[in-house]
Amino acid sequence: MTQAGFYPPTLYNATEAAPQEQLALVKVQVDRCSGKYPSLDDDESYSLKIPTPEQSTKATIKAKSVWGALRGMETLSQLVYTTRAGALVIGSLPVDITDKPAYAHRGLMLDTSRNFFPVADIKRTLDAMSYNKLNVFHWHIVDAQSWPIESKFMPELYQKGAYSPSMTYSHREVKDIIQYARVRGIRVIPEFDMPGHVSVVNHVLPQIMTCVNEQPGWDAFAAEPPSGQFNPLLEDTYKFVKKIIDEYSGLFRDDYFHTGTDEVNTHCWETTQSIQQFLTANKKKAGELVDMFLGRAHKFLTDNKKLPMVWEEAILDFNATLSKEAVVQVWRSAENVQKVVAKGHKVLANSYEYWYLDCGHGTWLGNNPEGNSWCDPFKHWQRVYSYDPIANITSPAEQKLVIGGDVCLWAEQTDTNNLDNVLWPRAAAAAEVLWSGKEANGKPLTVKDALVRIQDQRFRLVARGIKAEPLQPLWCARNPGMCDLPPKAPE
Amino acid sequence: MTQAGFYPPTLYNATEAAPQEQLALVKVQVDRCSGKYPSLDDDESYSLKIPTPEQSTKATIKAKSVWGALRGMETLSQLVYTTRAGALVIGSLPVDITDKPAYAHRGLMLDTSRNFFPVADIKRTLDAMSYNKLNVFHWHIVDAQSWPIESKFMPELYQKGAYSPSMTYSHREVKDIIQYARVRGIRVIPEFDMPGHVSVVNHVLPQIMTCVNEQPGWDAFAAEPPSGQFNPLLEDTYKFVKKIIDEYSGLFRDDYFHTGTDEVNTHCWETTQSIQQFLTANKKKAGELVDMFLGRAHKFLTDNKKLPMVWEEAILDFNATLSKEAVVQVWRSAENVQKVVAKGHKVLANSYEYWYLDCGHGTWLGNNPEGNSWCDPFKHWQRVYSYDPIANITSPAEQKLVIGGDVCLWAEQTDTNNLDNVLWPRAAAAAEVLWSGKEANGKPLTVKDALVRIQDQRFRLVARGIKAEPLQPLWCARNPGMCDLPPKAPE
Repeated sequence: MTQAGFYPPTLYNATEAAPQEQLALVKVQVDRCSGKYPSLDDDESYSLKIPTPEQSTKATIKAKSVWGALRGMETLSQLVYTTRAGALVIGSLPVDITDKPAYAHRGLMLDTSRNFFPVADIKRTLDAMSYNKLNVFHWHIVDAQSWPIESKFMPELYQKGAYSPSMTYSHREVKDIIQYARVRGIRVIPEFDMPGHVSVVNHVLPQIMTCVNEQPGWDAFAAEPPSGQFNPLLEDTYKFVKKIIDEYSGLFRDDYFHTGTDEVNTHCWETTQSIQQFLTANKKKAGELVDMFLGRAHKFLTDNKKLPMVWEEAILDFNATLSKEAVVQVWRSAENVQKVVAKGHKVLANSYEYWYLDCGHGTWLGNNPEGNSWCDPFKHWQRVYSYDPIANITSPAEQKLVIGGDVCLWAEQTDTNNLDNVLWPRAAAAAEVLWSGKEANGKPLTVKDALVRIQDQRFRLVARGIKAEPLQPLWCARNPGMCDLPPKAPE
Repeated sequence: MTQAGFYPPTLYNATEAAPQEQLALVKVQVDRCSGKYPSLDDDESYSLKIPTPEQSTKATIKAKSVWGALRGMETLSQLVYTTRAGALVIGSLPVDITDKPAYAHRGLMLDTSRNFFPVADIKRTLDAMSYNKLNVFHWHIVDAQSWPIESKFMPELYQKGAYSPSMTYSHREVKDIIQYARVRGIRVIPEFDMPGHVSVVNHVLPQIMTCVNEQPGWDAFAAEPPSGQFNPLLEDTYKFVKKIIDEYSGLFRDDYFHTGTDEVNTHCWETTQSIQQFLTANKKKAGELVDMFLGRAHKFLTDNKKLPMVWEEAILDFNATLSKEAVVQVWRSAENVQKVVAKGHKVLANSYEYWYLDCGHGTWLGNNPEGNSWCDPFKHWQRVYSYDPIANITSPAEQKLVIGGDVCLWAEQTDTNNLDNVLWPRAAAAAEVLWSGKEANGKPLTVKDALVRIQDQRFRLVARGIKAEPLQPLWCARNPGMCDLPPKAPE
């Protein structure tokens, strides 16, 4: 399994042990088979016991659910090292682990609209997620730039909206991805971002669109080009939204369905004549239309027995009415997590300042001699690791509302050529925060100690086919502590 | 040749042309076959003429040297686009190009010591260099952490100093790499960095070493761990240096041989008792030993008919005496280029602030909760492109001393898993600066215009097997100008 030269580094200097008694059996005991698909309420706890050879040659994993058993097996795999001589060994026995996740929602968000990723990339990402006990694939499928997913009710959506006929996901492929994720204990939550970020729909239904691809000066109408939002006053808009939600609620199996609602541009609506007239006549502000839009869109979700997930703007900027079960995803600052829990909603905490893995390679906008981007700098693994989803939230009840977060990859500057590098091993640092929280045995988890774990994990990822970036020279990986920053470094 | 979906984007919206007369022949005419290996003095100019179909079906490339002809053929390949229907077309005819490089030395530096790169990675990098008319592979082969290259005179150097038996370059492989580079018009300049950055030699010759792997507090003795420098007072040191230079002067064929001399640590020598006694007895300062060391080392180069190349510290920090032919490589600031040309030396200009492609992914040092690195931030392509090797140098004579530069990759956080992503397409931005300079037809070349070229070039690189990072969403690539930063963007 291990590639040449990719010995797990912390064992590199270990003395080759004499042959030991072998582990003959790993008994996996699951209390009950939970639902067919993993869900937010799953119990993923497990215990793992490996006795000394003198005691027994039988290890035991016990879990409440099959998903917990999967986590236990992953932990077991991380205890096994390949020595230089090729022997498989477990470092120190006996092992007695009782473990459970700090957060129920441990996600990775991938944007497949700005650039396209083949199914093989998504499956490999699901593999890597499972190696890191991540359990939600938040699939930001469509956006302003392209519509890669097949639609049965309106095939032109992807026939005209995908970048090319080969850059699409058929229903069959999506079902395959969901199944692939399921057996790894990973939920797949689709996001159909609306009413903004939908410029691509203009290929098919220009009549329900406003402010499409305004040029030049797109920035007055959208967060990024091409601009374009649904007209929230037209019945045809809701007919379309209902069709979308009906079709993809059937295809995707998770309880949750993400309707986006980030970066809705009120200027776009205010400068659309018919909308402007409506606002004047009814003494309303454009922002109020978001609540109206979401109210109707989320009714379609309820009709499909789905629970809503939205970005933070829905509630923080537009004060939209959301059902109690709604999950609100915070991205604009770590502080906004507090604001959302104060309103009593469940929260996914993933501030761009920590968990936007795309940041830091400069702007993708043209004609910018400085080349800088709003979300610079790069979020190195230490920064990713330093994030605390419940920072500054002291009330246990409010802490409980923070159900987890997504490490996010917006794909403006990522495609199949660099996907693994951008995600890994940094997403593993987020995964550790989501599984272990920020302390162990009452002491804060530190970057110093995390390096050894994440470094080892990076070598495991490479050995398992994930092109994860190296964190250090191999010399440092093999000599833990010898490349530490000295206490009073001159730089 | 083009991958699915990787149409050269600027032609994406072009109307499919009706079948045209075909180009029947490309005549390549070379005045004289220059030396067997490319060299600094080569004339790489060429002309390329492609008539209209009405005029003729014969294109012509004329060059003074075979290397110039190679550059002309590369240009020709860049004029050919694959349409969506699969036809190969040339955008507009007639073509009449007369071209030559702005700089004679257009290099790419790769460090193969901090992390190892298989031969296939190096060959693929040479391929990509040739696609971008880069003509020097500066091979930073060994450093403190590992010694991957075979040595005939002292096999233990790589037997003990390489990371593993498979992470080595045999003489046969090096010859193969040099030949592979030669037929692409690329020189291979080896660097054996000394007298610092040699900790790895301690495995074999501890008797010639000082301050080896000082822990903790390595930072007082070296720029990075493990510390270790040659003892410049011992005859055994010079015997070893002579053997190294003799062996590798024979193996490598270029006129130049790089002896490093960056980041020599005087404290290391000052705290070595025997050296301290010598300095006191002779009323010398430790820095003066660099001049002494280099004087002897470069004598061995002369004996082997090699010309010296060194990093800037040799002359700017230690005022070493260098031969007139020596090339001094500047890395610590753009301004230092001026200081070196003022001393009358040839210069390679590659300030880390612009052309260190490894910067910006945070520190690789452990135990740094902040995670920042001295060479942050990331050098995005716009930054790379903005570098002017002759900035603020007004005298034509001094400008002429700037013979080019190397876009550099130090490999602390790069290995085979992310090599292509880190190098490309940013190295293509440096390559354009080195080939075209900073202006065309008396007007400055701009980032706005460069985007279209470098974007197209990135798609060509991907189509030719190089995993180059995307610069933009595919939508932007296909709609040039529509993703430009608006004149007064709010962010």
